[in-house]
Parts: sequence; structure tokens; C-alpha cells
Amino acid sequence: MMTTYIFGHKNPDTDAISSAIIMGDFEKLNGNSEAKAYRLGDVGAETKYALDYFKVEAPTLLTDDLTDQDVILVDHNEFQQSADSIDKAVIKHVIDHHRIANFETATPLYYRAEPVGCTATILYKMYNEQNLEIKPEIAGLMLSAIISDSLLFKSPTCTEQDVEAAKAVAKIANVDIDAYGLDMLKAGASTTDKSEKDLLEADAKSFNMGNHVVRIAQVNTVDIEEVIDRQEALENEMNKVSAEEGYDAFVLVVTDILNSDSKILVTGAQKEKIGQAFNVQLENNTAFLPNVVSRKKQIVPPITDILS
Amino acid sequence: MMTTYIFGHKNPDTDAISSAIIMGDFEKLNGNSEAKAYRLGDVGAETKYALDYFKVEAPTLLTDDLTDQDVILVDHNEFQQSADSIDKAVIKHVIDHHRIANFETATPLYYRAEPVGCTATILYKMYNEQNLEIKPEIAGLMLSAIISDSLLFKSPTCTEQDVEAAKAVAKIANVDIDAYGLDMLKAGASTTDKSEKDLLEADAKSFNMGNHVVRIAQVNTVDIEEVIDRQEALENEMNKVSAEEGYDAFVLVVTDILNSDSKILVTGAQKEKIGQAFNVQLENNTAFLPNVVSRKKQIVPPITDILS
Repeated sequence: MMTTYIFGHKNPDTDAISSAIIMGDFEKLNGNSEAKAYRLGDVGAETKYALDYFKVEAPTLLTDDLTDQDVILVDHNEFQQSADSIDKAVIKHVIDHHRIANFETATPLYYRAEPVGCTATILYKMYNEQNLEIKPEIAGLMLSAIISDSLLFKSPTCTEQDVEAAKAVAKIANVDIDAYGLDMLKAGASTTDKSEKDLLEADAKSFNMGNHVVRIAQVNTVDIEEVIDRQEALENEMNKVSAEEGYDAFVLVVTDILNSDSKILVTGAQKEKIGQAFNVQLENNTAFLPNVVSRKKQIVPPITDILS
Repeated sequence: MMTTYIFGHKNPDTDAISSAIIMGDFEKLNGNSEAKAYRLGDVGAETKYALDYFKVEAPTLLTDDLTDQDVILVDHNEFQQSADSIDKAVIKHVIDHHRIANFETATPLYYRAEPVGCTATILYKMYNEQNLEIKPEIAGLMLSAIISDSLLFKSPTCTEQDVEAAKAVAKIANVDIDAYGLDMLKAGASTTDKSEKDLLEADAKSFNMGNHVVRIAQVNTVDIEEVIDRQEALENEMNKVSAEEGYDAFVLVVTDILNSDSKILVTGAQKEKIGQAFNVQLENNTAFLPNVVSRKKQIVPPITDILS
């Protein structure tokens, strides 16, 4: 019997790593003894905290060529976010909560997508539908993924199903959601040990808006000012990268995961318009945005509107 | 509240029509009172038999522009098989049993694909998972779709789950599977009232194989010789179309739905190779292929192999 490769997206977050491990367990419980979880990149500090807490090993880094191999994708489907040889693999199953794009198979498959906040929430439902036992460490990883994707239920992407799943698995894992969740998020929110370049690259995406190219990076922290204290060095790096890459604006979103607010730091020719997008006047290139935590739902749309 | 448009593929078969109606019922049972089944083409004789038998009205022909409208796709996903304005619609849900290709959404959605023989089999599972009542006429349409897609369980695409679903819904619909199934298949298998052009066009697809273009049409019948008796007129039409369209071979697969055998009628420059693909010598351009019923699984692969 050949290996079934299970993995989440590149630059894996806690949902991508956890869901691969959880799906590996689910497959084994369903008799697929050759199912094995992999990862497409380094394990971040937040994910490492979760794995250590529940005493689960990180998945193996995927280096094999996947041509003609059986694979299961979790937490993604778009080929550019997947393994390099994904177009030559035999995709047997996908579990995901994103839009579908740049995805294609040659043969019928299992595909389960639901518009919830976290892949692990769908996996939780799958265990329940089959009355499968959720082991405490699997429950712990489910909880970690949901807390991570929802920023402890505060992201606008979070649904009632995510909250219900988190409450149920927290009991199995025997942890207090708020206490554990804050500790886990804090573990991934340390900024002092990172260079300006690291902070600006770790979670950054470019967007074409009208005739402008806008770079939007996001950093999670428990202390916004700890990041803003490095404003001069950050701006120097932002300006340098913008000159090299041709960005018309560079927005750094510094998100306070405890209070669910953000401060933006903006450079570039279009910076005044970025302020207007949020109905604020930038002060020393910064603005405080209360209750803003989601780049996808709260940052990108207003900037798109004003620049398009 | 806006309408949710539910429909199967163009040139709808019994699964495409039935699954749209069934999914409309499922949505209503889940509180979506504006869900409505549509069809993208004419209702065939087989499907009409099923609708009449269970006293269900055919869905409305879709003529509305779907821009920004909510839609649910059943029994297909590839945009070229769907409504013309599908790329501008908001796809909320897909239930399907085909490969995924030429499909894309802007936002997360529900997607459920399983590699079973019939979309209605997946819908049957969905009712059960939610403990929803399956009304006798809905059960009858589920049964009809499974019988149609599986040729009464004889197609190699049929799975154990399709058989189990069919047995369960036949009880609810209170019909004998074999007796009803044969009557339904026969209703769609009348060939005497159709022109040669109709027979060659109703279910035909083109395939690029190596440097050759091969046209493969399939006709279901209860009497192969009733079709082959018209060989001269059929060959004239096949040669005419091949000259117009540049086909290197035209294969008509005449499938006996009672005995699960087929006879092929072949014209074109590559016809001898088509015979070789099945290890037979064509006699007067025909060959009998015992136990062959599936174009997808039993006809296309061997011809592809020999011509590529």
C-alpha cells in the first residue's frame, strides 16, 4: 500500500499543521494505515507552543516528488499555495474553508469545503458524524487551530460552529480556552526577537488596487508600542523594499491580539489615501484602528475602494 | 430574500434534473424557502418517465441572467457545462461526483464531492445525516437517478454506496427496482423515433488522442440490431460530419441496456486502429464488445492508448 501524503499550505500556520496531523489520525481511524502528515515549511512559534503543550511531534518536512502519489490537502486548494509537484499528484481528498481557485483534478475525488473560520472545525464535524473518538491531543490541536484562525473568536471570519467546536474539544483536551488560548497566541506574538525584515516579511501580501500596488504586512503582538518603538528602522526597511519592488504604499498592520485592535504604520506616495480609507488623519505615519483585526475583511476592502 | 437557483449540467440527464429537484427540497427543509430547481435544457424521454411516474413537475428552464445571484450546482462543476453567466454568479454550494476542473469562486463556499456513481447518492446521505424525512416522490427521483447513472448497477462507475442508497429509497418509493428500472431505461432507449442525426448528436463527445481527433457517440437501446439495421444511413451521416469537422475516426457505441453489452460502428481513416484497441477485427465496420457499457471507463482509455 502506498503512502497517502497529507499536508496544509506553504508558510504553514497552526491550522495548516494541526489539520494535517488531525486528518492523518482520521484516516488511520478509517483504516488507511499509510496516511502520514507532512508540512510544507517551518513550524512557527505559536504552532510549536501548541505541539509542545499537547506532546505531539511536528510533521515531517515534505521533500518527496509527488508524481502519481496519493495526496490529501487540508486548509488550502490553490496550487500556488501547495507542494511544487501537486499538479502531478493524485488528489484523493480536500478539506478546506477557503474559496476554490487554480485547482483541478483528472478524476473524481472527495472534496469538503465549508465557509467556517477554521479547517479543524470541519474535521471536528467529520469525527462526530462517524462517532470516532477524539483523543485529548487531537482535541488540543483542533482547539489550537480554531483559536489561531479566529484570534480567540474575535475575527469576523469566526462562525458559531467554530465557537461550538472549540468549546467541545476544550473539554476533551481538558484546558481552559481563554487561559490556554492567550498563552498560545502570546507565544507566537513575540516581536523583540525578530528583525525589521522578518516582521515585514513573515505575513505580507501584495495587492493590485486600481493603478497602484499596495503591500500589506501584518504582525500579531501583545504590545503594539513594542513594535512601534522601532518605527524609524521599520520605515527605512519599508521604503527600501518599496523602492525595489515598486510599491505605491506599504501598510504594516500591528494587531493587538489581547484587545483586538490594530495600529497601522504607512509609507509611500499613497499614504494619505490610506488614512482616508479609514476616515482618519495619519499622525507621524500611524493611525489607531479600534476593533480591526482581519486583513481580509477589514483592511483590504476599504483601501481597495479608495484606490480603485 | 433572493432566489437560490439550483441546477444540473447542460444536456441534462436524469441525475442532473432529479438532483436539482431533490436539492431544492433539501434546501427548503433547511429553511431556505427561496430555493428553486431549474434545468439548462430539454427533459429527455427517460427523465420524463421518472417525473411522470412519481408525479413531479419538471423544473423551469433557466433563462435568467445569474449575475450576483445565489446558485447551487448539482451533478457538475465545470463552467463550460454550466449556465452561460455562471462566472458572474455567487456559487454557494456544489454537490457533485465528477472531477473538478474549470471551476473557481471569489469567496468560500460549501462543496461536497464524492467519487460515487451518482449525485443523488450523496444527497441521500445528506438527508440521512440530518435525519430529514425523504418523501416518497423524492425517494423515487433518487432511485431514478441512480438507476440511470449506473444502468441498473451494471456500469463500472457504480459503487456499493449507490446500490445501498437505491435499495433504501426503493422501499420508501414503494417500487420494485428491477421492474421500474427496466421500464424507465426502456422509455429512454427508443431509437426508432429518432433520425440518424439525432442518434449521433444526443450524447457525443470529441477527444484529442495523439494527433487524431476521435468522435465518440453513445446510444442506449434494448435492441442493438434495431440501430444497426440503419447502418448505411448512419455511416453516411458519420462520414458527412467527419468531413465537416475533421474527425479521424467516428465511433458509435450502441449499448444494450438489458444485457450490458455494446456494438461499435466505426468510420474514418483510423477505423482499423479502433478495432485493434479492443483486440477485434472489424466486420463490415462493426464489432461486438461483451460487457462494455461505459464510454468513460471502457471505451476512451483503450482508444487513447492505441492512438497516442
